[in-house]
Amino acid sequence: MINVAVVGCGYWGPNLIRNFSNTPGARLSAICDLDTAKLAKFSLQYKDVFLTADYLDLLKRPDVDAVAIATPVSSHYKLARLALEAGKHVLVEKPITSNVAHAEELVLLAESKKLVLMVDHTFAYTPAVQKIKDLIDAGELGNLLYYDSVRINLGLFQTDVNVLWDLAVHDLAIMDFALGQEPVSVSATGHAHLAGQHEDIAYLTCFFKSNLIAHLHLNWLSPVKIRRTIIGGDKQMVVYDDLEPSEKLKIYDRGANLHDIGEENAIRQKIDYRMGDMHAPHIAPGEALKCNSAHFIDCIVNNRTPLTDGQSGLRVVRILEAATESMRRRGEPVTISRL
Amino acid sequence: MINVAVVGCGYWGPNLIRNFSNTPGARLSAICDLDTAKLAKFSLQYKDVFLTADYLDLLKRPDVDAVAIATPVSSHYKLARLALEAGKHVLVEKPITSNVAHAEELVLLAESKKLVLMVDHTFAYTPAVQKIKDLIDAGELGNLLYYDSVRINLGLFQTDVNVLWDLAVHDLAIMDFALGQEPVSVSATGHAHLAGQHEDIAYLTCFFKSNLIAHLHLNWLSPVKIRRTIIGGDKQMVVYDDLEPSEKLKIYDRGANLHDIGEENAIRQKIDYRMGDMHAPHIAPGEALKCNSAHFIDCIVNNRTPLTDGQSGLRVVRILEAATESMRRRGEPVTISRL
Amino acid sequence: MINVAVVGCGYWGPNLIRNFSNTPGARLSAICDLDTAKLAKFSLQYKDVFLTADYLDLLKRPDVDAVAIATPVSSHYKLARLALEAGKHVLVEKPITSNVAHAEELVLLAESKKLVLMVDHTFAYTPAVQKIKDLIDAGELGNLLYYDSVRINLGLFQTDVNVLWDLAVHDLAIMDFALGQEPVSVSATGHAHLAGQHEDIAYLTCFFKSNLIAHLHLNWLSPVKIRRTIIGGDKQMVVYDDLEPSEKLKIYDRGANLHDIGEENAIRQKIDYRMGDMHAPHIAPGEALKCNSAHFIDCIVNNRTPLTDGQSGLRVVRILEAATESMRRRGEPVTISRL
Amino acid sequence: MINVAVVGCGYWGPNLIRNFSNTPGARLSAICDLDTAKLAKFSLQYKDVFLTADYLDLLKRPDVDAVAIATPVSSHYKLARLALEAGKHVLVEKPITSNVAHAEELVLLAESKKLVLMVDHTFAYTPAVQKIKDLIDAGELGNLLYYDSVRINLGLFQTDVNVLWDLAVHDLAIMDFALGQEPVSVSATGHAHLAGQHEDIAYLTCFFKSNLIAHLHLNWLSPVKIRRTIIGGDKQMVVYDDLEPSEKLKIYDRGANLHDIGEENAIRQKIDYRMGDMHAPHIAPGEALKCNSAHFIDCIVNNRTPLTDGQSGLRVVRILEAATESMRRRGEPVTISRL
Repeated sequence: MINVAVVGCGYWGPNLIRNFSNTPGARLSAICDLDTAKLAKFSLQYKDVFLTADYLDLLKRPDVDAVAIATPVSSHYKLARLALEAGKHVLVEKPITSNVAHAEELVLLAESKKLVLMVDHTFAYTPAVQKIKDLIDAGELGNLLYYDSVRINLGLFQTDVNVLWDLAVHDLAIMDFALGQEPVSVSATGHAHLAGQHEDIAYLTCFFKSNLIAHLHLNWLSPVKIRRTIIGGDKQMVVYDDLEPSEKLKIYDRGANLHDIGEENAIRQKIDYRMGDMHAPHIAPGEALKCNSAHFIDCIVNNRTPLTDGQSGLRVVRILEAATESMRRRGEPVTISRL
Repeated sequence: MINVAVVGCGYWGPNLIRNFSNTPGARLSAICDLDTAKLAKFSLQYKDVFLTADYLDLLKRPDVDAVAIATPVSSHYKLARLALEAGKHVLVEKPITSNVAHAEELVLLAESKKLVLMVDHTFAYTPAVQKIKDLIDAGELGNLLYYDSVRINLGLFQTDVNVLWDLAVHDLAIMDFALGQEPVSVSATGHAHLAGQHEDIAYLTCFFKSNLIAHLHLNWLSPVKIRRTIIGGDKQMVVYDDLEPSEKLKIYDRGANLHDIGEENAIRQKIDYRMGDMHAPHIAPGEALKCNSAHFIDCIVNNRTPLTDGQSGLRVVRILEAATESMRRRGEPVTISRL
Repeated sequence: MINVAVVGCGYWGPNLIRNFSNTPGARLSAICDLDTAKLAKFSLQYKDVFLTADYLDLLKRPDVDAVAIATPVSSHYKLARLALEAGKHVLVEKPITSNVAHAEELVLLAESKKLVLMVDHTFAYTPAVQKIKDLIDAGELGNLLYYDSVRINLGLFQTDVNVLWDLAVHDLAIMDFALGQEPVSVSATGHAHLAGQHEDIAYLTCFFKSNLIAHLHLNWLSPVKIRRTIIGGDKQMVVYDDLEPSEKLKIYDRGANLHDIGEENAIRQKIDYRMGDMHAPHIAPGEALKCNSAHFIDCIVNNRTPLTDGQSGLRVVRILEAATESMRRRGEPVTISRL
Repeated sequence: MINVAVVGCGYWGPNLIRNFSNTPGARLSAICDLDTAKLAKFSLQYKDVFLTADYLDLLKRPDVDAVAIATPVSSHYKLARLALEAGKHVLVEKPITSNVAHAEELVLLAESKKLVLMVDHTFAYTPAVQKIKDLIDAGELGNLLYYDSVRINLGLFQTDVNVLWDLAVHDLAIMDFALGQEPVSVSATGHAHLAGQHEDIAYLTCFFKSNLIAHLHLNWLSPVKIRRTIIGGDKQMVVYDDLEPSEKLKIYDRGANLHDIGEENAIRQKIDYRMGDMHAPHIAPGEALKCNSAHFIDCIVNNRTPLTDGQSGLRVVRILEAATESMRRRGEPVTISRL
């Protein structure tokens, strides 16, 4: 039985609390938040759970094997580092840290301590995204041509980060999980419309070594909500609409191919279009978070590397940092750093 | 009565032929195409119309006051120049030319000859785009925040131009007509997936002096067809979906505003969201091309400047040229040249 | 403070439990279910609430002023009658009873005892339906022409009632609340596709004294889920799509009118079409159930008649009973009984 | 070469003229309309075609082998009868006649004269409906459970017929072509909202000997346009949306089945739901009318029975006549007459 402490009772923390109190092999042993009023609300329902506002105190407890961190991004690094140093396994909300240097440090620390460091890239655990990965891995899409995502709505402005760190992180996590390729450079543009605030609209292009190009459109100021990704391959193409209640994935047997045609002495190229059928596999509904917590426990118990480990969190933060830099320079391409 | 000759009987030419044969104040006097087989098809229906494969011959005719050019882009400059030099008014398909220098020359030539030079930015003459311009001019949207357009489908690959010159030209023409602002620089990215072909997917950001940012997404390789533009203002926002049969424009009373709140000694800013009603004005169907040809004749007869004159065509080509340059440099920002 | 007991912990009961434990002026004092295992699940969270499997015992308690009944339809009559006889106010799930005679008896009993008898016609308490009623009452739609509703999905077959009693009850409750008119007769058709089961698909037409006609389409066997109602008036028309997340109501300024035109000595009629704008008022999300429970308490405390009182429940059951009879006779019209 | 005369140059006639002037094996030899002004418009384009206002004169011409009748419904019978008596093959617009007796007479007359009598049930010749027929014939849908169609818009009121004869005729023609079963009785309801006009809204249920039930919803007064048919089988279900530009047919592997489960000494039935994939076959666009005219010529030349012969037109009219009768009696079921 793995004893898990949840740190942070804000927007996301209560989901973690509910899930770890239900995950086989896990025991919710403690909840931590600086705000004791928030803590108090859990005292009735979770009577045997230790509640505390003192994080260092929490880390000293022998009945805490792992901590799940759901606090503001700026505190992720410090809290995760202390936990790892105290010998605790760590699950941390995305993005893993607010800069590359901190993410690299956490990854190295977890490796040296042989502890599980997992980042909560939630979408990687949804049935729709897992189906996309399966399609790509099985070669159903052929060679990837483009990944195009729109993630916009009239939304919660974040005051501590720009719209890339808030919304693009979801797409970058999906790409990291599903595409099997890493971008080599990025170009980003955007604008901050409210004085003194971060960018509320951003466009991010990722370049790859292959023929693949990826583009993300993020916007906190859209009158309509859109969550739609198109993945083009040279065999098939997928449209993933996360707002569709039942047909989230549509797979199209469509595309265009070059075709050499001999013509007298010369060779000329002709483009053939393929307009085939569409197929929408039934995606069983399922709570991503549930798989997520079970996977974290499984990695601890069986000494496995999480699908979304610290390295994955680091790769995503590298792109976000480069994109923010490119956005400041109005689209100038920025190379993604490597260790 | 203005005598009009149509040059080019390919994809678009027949529309011009049909329209000018019906436009009050105009007389279709001649049709010109290098391919005499194409010409022959019009001989039955337009018996009094002069048909020729010889453009220079056409320009000598006294019963040709104006020419409407619907040939491949690369020939626009030469054909338009010859016509202007021969003292003919000119209507030319978009884009006006394939480079800035040529467009500038045509503009100067038309001015010096006091001839009408109009570019066929068709969308500017549609009821939907005219309604958008009215909304912006009347201040209904407030200060413009962003213009975001998606124009994608599995489409006719062009062999002579990239996807920007084929598709972005529509959006740039709409922006030139409706926004009342010109971009100062651009950043573009894209990719050519078929060996030896032009870019088939492109993303273009336009930066303005104001708070406005514009972004266009063009793609010849999308399994689904989308023609959707979102225009965000700080008062209202418009979603323009050109594929909607009846509700092409939806106007949303939505947005976010900064709001200063005094708090003890400090001033703190709070973001207020506005989630108001949506309104879809009825857009009467109407053929843009019809207005277009009537407007051309009106400008000739009454010595007026077309809404989409040579200057407008030139401004669009300036952006296309800069964007193509930026795309080659992977998003590096490129300043828009000015005379 | 009104003490409320919730009876039945199946599908809907837990919602009532949650709501009455949060409704100002109400105190959740008891929960009753024949299944003690279900009861046990509430013991932790609701420690001061009396739990019992003995309904008669519950009715004897002085700390029970009102009961909220969420048991199978067939038990509604008996449980509600016992409660009223014991001097308790009653809130009962829809439909109020499984036949007209029982509903009439409950209505008379509540009146004679001067107790509140309310039926849980949930949709009447949603912002969208209340907006529809406001539009009709304010004459915004003009004279009503038709009410057309489609309520279909691949759904939970009910084993004790046919699809009319399961699904049409929602539309009939909305109509009873919003239209201000009662049908005088009905014609219904349907079919039971699974041997030994009730009708799983049904079509119901309601005739009114006025020019209004209503039609409901109910189906448990549809591959797609649709919840859409069109209400046509001679001034405006409303499309109400309950599955739309943000634009549930669309109001169209459209219609057709007869127009007399004098023509020489005769008068001829011409039909004019009106194709005007569409308007979608923002509907704030809100839980219907919350208003519902607050309204029940308000009616008890202030001696008011509920919007959806026993009479309303009775009117709906009258139509369901007549419709079931008509359906058996393959559409033969059946007059709605009146007291 | 079959010489075809087109009779009637109103709404539909020009389509027939255009098609028969292009159909291999056919020669458009004559056009007839009472209105000589309408005729005149065709004189330029069809110089070798005989134009006349005199139908009897037309029938005497040896260069007329067949007539295609596109006049108002009330004239179909008389014009078709005269043509058959004159030994001409006949293609007539739907519905074939305005009553059953007339349709029966035409069918017998054509048989006795051994002439082709074809009714223009256009939808039967569309790729989407042919695909539906293929699916049903191949057993892909299993046993048919229901056919449900909605065909509504704010439309052209007809002054000579009610909405059933104008719109339901399309669905009944599709059903006659694709289902392979004939209804035994009908129940219909509807209402005429404009004084002195025919019913503008109608609902029609068709009962079959099998488990199949069909229902049509027709409305000339809807603010939105819908053309959607759901066909439920016990194996698969089809949604056919004629307004979808590219995915007109969606085939769902969904349904519910009864399942016997032994339980101690008793047998109990359980309902299993199947929520499988959706598949949208690519439907190549194609003009139904073109197939239609080619099929008519083919039947004449090769002495074949048309897919939509006079019998088919008669079956549809039988249902329309019974439905109109039932509608007058507010839904009372009416048996379909048989010869």
